[in-house]
Amino acid sequence: MRVMGVDPGLTRCGVGAVEGRPGAPLSLVAVGVVRTAADEELGARLVGIEAGIERWLDEVRPDAVAVERVFSQHNVRTVMGTAQAAGIAVLCAARRGLPVALHTPSEVKAAITGSGTADKKQIGAMVTRLLRLTEMPKPADAADALALAICHVWRGGAQHRLATALAKARNPHR
Amino acid sequence: MRVMGVDPGLTRCGVGAVEGRPGAPLSLVAVGVVRTAADEELGARLVGIEAGIERWLDEVRPDAVAVERVFSQHNVRTVMGTAQAAGIAVLCAARRGLPVALHTPSEVKAAITGSGTADKKQIGAMVTRLLRLTEMPKPADAADALALAICHVWRGGAQHRLATALAKARNPHR
Repeated sequence: MRVMGVDPGLTRCGVGAVEGRPGAPLSLVAVGVVRTAADEELGARLVGIEAGIERWLDEVRPDAVAVERVFSQHNVRTVMGTAQAAGIAVLCAARRGLPVALHTPSEVKAAITGSGTADKKQIGAMVTRLLRLTEMPKPADAADALALAICHVWRGGAQHRLATALAKARNPHR
Repeated sequence: MRVMGVDPGLTRCGVGAVEGRPGAPLSLVAVGVVRTAADEELGARLVGIEAGIERWLDEVRPDAVAVERVFSQHNVRTVMGTAQAAGIAVLCAARRGLPVALHTPSEVKAAITGSGTADKKQIGAMVTRLLRLTEMPKPADAADALALAICHVWRGGAQHRLATALAKARNPHR
């Protein structure tokens, strides 16, 4: 399963794709950042993000897209732009008929490090280890996007196992 | 000048277009609502809003688009969806190269009623009067979209007059 994670932001939108399935080693497909200039108008920035995400989807061809769920508890000064960048990533994926999942930052942290309150450095370290990279992906937004993608592979797997278990429980003779 | 106003929302996105210039009577071009179902996934809803806004832009062919500026002080439960709907309206307009303006709710209220704290009913009554309609546009989101468009026509005019006055002041013999 190939998953593209998006850590949304107007100035830096982290994008990272991994290939994998639960219980098997993961591999890095690609990682990077879509940037827009802070002195541009909002419209131009959103057009830039749409174009950047589209390019990434064209190149990566993911089976699913995972986007960070934005809350109003985020940095108040930037939260609206972050929500709008997230919305555009969701829009681009949904237009292509790709499944889109939203994961909260604490879900991602808990999936990757075992702790919902892990810091950026810890996330980066675990992403580096899990993907067997020689150095930590930079900037942090890029590492966070990979963490989202890994979280999705694992949660998708957990959900799949849960669904299988439930189906078996309902029909034990199958 | 033809302005299309958008009062953003995931469930109901008010859209209203007016034709006018400062100091002259305004006229209604079109008014309505883009709706998406609350039980649909976010991706499908954003795709629906994009398609709805695109249809409106095709039909109305505005010279400018005015979108309500969303703040994190809005209803916390719905603010992220509202911000994302606003982002998509801005994206659609910017992709066509249309100028996009963001006006705050209090700027719109002050422009239309003289008071930045006017209620929905007062906004609706003034929109009805200014556009010489026989009844108040419904739902409130549609009336709010028209109020945004009217605010933009008037503010655009004020900005134009200011620019003209400044140009004259700099070069009084012109």
